[in-house]
Amino acid sequence: MTRTVLESKTKTVVIGFDEPFCVIGERINPTGRKKLAAELEMDDFSTVERDALEQVACGAMVLDVNSGAVFTNKMAEDPRYADNNFVEPTLMKALIERVQALVDVPLCIDSSVPGALENGLMAAEGRPLLNSVTGEEERLELVLPLVKKYNVPVVAISNDDTGISEDPDVRFAVAKKIVERAADFGIPAHDIVVDPLVMPIGAMATAGHQVFTLVRRLRDELGVNTTCGASNISFGLPNRHGVNAAFLPMAMAAGMTSAIMNPIRHQEMEAINAANLLMNHDPNGGKWIGFSRVLDAVKDGATFAEAAQAAAASGAKSGGRRGGRRRA
Amino acid sequence: MTRTVLESKTKTVVIGFDEPFCVIGERINPTGRKKLAAELEMDDFSTVERDALEQVACGAMVLDVNSGAVFTNKMAEDPRYADNNFVEPTLMKALIERVQALVDVPLCIDSSVPGALENGLMAAEGRPLLNSVTGEEERLELVLPLVKKYNVPVVAISNDDTGISEDPDVRFAVAKKIVERAADFGIPAHDIVVDPLVMPIGAMATAGHQVFTLVRRLRDELGVNTTCGASNISFGLPNRHGVNAAFLPMAMAAGMTSAIMNPIRHQEMEAINAANLLMNHDPNGGKWIGFSRVLDAVKDGATFAEAAQAAAASGAKSGGRRGGRRRA
Repeated sequence: MTRTVLESKTKTVVIGFDEPFCVIGERINPTGRKKLAAELEMDDFSTVERDALEQVACGAMVLDVNSGAVFTNKMAEDPRYADNNFVEPTLMKALIERVQALVDVPLCIDSSVPGALENGLMAAEGRPLLNSVTGEEERLELVLPLVKKYNVPVVAISNDDTGISEDPDVRFAVAKKIVERAADFGIPAHDIVVDPLVMPIGAMATAGHQVFTLVRRLRDELGVNTTCGASNISFGLPNRHGVNAAFLPMAMAAGMTSAIMNPIRHQEMEAINAANLLMNHDPNGGKWIGFSRVLDAVKDGATFAEAAQAAAASGAKSGGRRGGRRRA
Repeated sequence: MTRTVLESKTKTVVIGFDEPFCVIGERINPTGRKKLAAELEMDDFSTVERDALEQVACGAMVLDVNSGAVFTNKMAEDPRYADNNFVEPTLMKALIERVQALVDVPLCIDSSVPGALENGLMAAEGRPLLNSVTGEEERLELVLPLVKKYNVPVVAISNDDTGISEDPDVRFAVAKKIVERAADFGIPAHDIVVDPLVMPIGAMATAGHQVFTLVRRLRDELGVNTTCGASNISFGLPNRHGVNAAFLPMAMAAGMTSAIMNPIRHQEMEAINAANLLMNHDPNGGKWIGFSRVLDAVKDGATFAEAAQAAAASGAKSGGRRGGRRRA
């Protein structure tokens, strides 16, 4: 049984074939969010803190923390800020400290800068997930020693020095190479979470098929857990959330065990909660019944984040968020 | 390639591994609808006609026509009406004639009464689907000769004289027996559409797993198309449509090729349209883009049936329902 164990200060999350799907919240990421990058440049962590609380209330079991900010104002004053190797290590430490002071879930340390990865590993409590290694030679040599040194699991992305192949067999071979190289460092396959790379279905009609086939092979032949940037599948299409909400259960049925995604969207989270039930990963349907109450509040006009936060608060008061009975 | 060919007066629908999922509209069925049964007793076909039009507009490719009405008033006057062998043959003929006068889609003739099945077969234009045979000896001996005589495909339900087994291996064995018995009659496997029987997930936690595994085996080992009463999966649960909307894409990913279901529900139809796109059964995404426009109208307050009918009407005016460009 492949089990990838993640820990926060007090909580354990297991990614595995016999576990509920692991939702990794993607929102703490300044890369595509200029407003967030500008806030971080001013040492304003209010959006990060709101995103941490909302994502966890909505069902994120792990939070991705990405430090890829560009500090344009500071850069104008001090040329060192043009180098992400200068910006990210400090920012990653600050982000991790802020987030884990607020929420008790395992973190996913996400950067292309090795110094930021190592600072994140030093700052994080418990056993975080490292994001990421690829099949690129330089990346393998930089990241796998960190994975070994800190004894953490790592996301392995299926591209290499030749780029991202459109051929799923090549992407499988890259994943296999990473698993073998990791083994050379003494890193077991159950600590590798492979991202087989999801292409937009609007650009490549076989993109869905490719993922489902790859996930099954990765599971059957390499015995590894899998993840993906789920929303890539719907890039450029109308009603993207509807495409994502069908994609996630199909990927789960094929054996996908986690995704890096936006948990603030109720349509996707509804699909995942229903698919967990259908995979027999929600004993007695307790999670589904609780989630359905949140959806009822959404139908009455609340945002999903508001409804989820209200449900979490009321669950905490009544002694548990999973439908525990009130005690007299 | 397994292809089950259905025909109406002028249209062909193929159920197959490389075809869009075949939605069989379930609503023309007085069994669980007392009001509809009462209307039919008065020779009032207005609900049937509305259901036919709405289901086709919403995306049903085939319409199930079930004649299982109980005529309580007539029964009080004439004891012959207590016998469905008396009621259903006449009613089936009338239903089929009404429906095919209004919509040009293949029909699925649904009755437990052999006389109604044969009357339906005589009344239906094209090549209807017969619903159903089971593994029960009496049923095999009554229905398979009709299937052979009229050269039509048939739904095969995986229960036999011992009832419905909770063991999926037994249900597979029943399906296999039906396929073999059909072969003895000269009926090919591609004219058998197996219903592996969907249990409620609320009563049996493994019900989802069972279906996905059975569908894959039925496809790989017997080479048959499959169908199911999709909404059974969510029986007794809150927010049933959310469960159905995850179940259908997962079943499709496992290889299910059709379902008998209510196409008036936009959440389920959204899931199916998205899954068709993800299975590469919607070339260039034309169907998805058209469906997204219907969803936009639903978000603006229209019912799904209204929005779908409006889109169908405007599509017909502009020379095609699949996003055809207007001609000058």
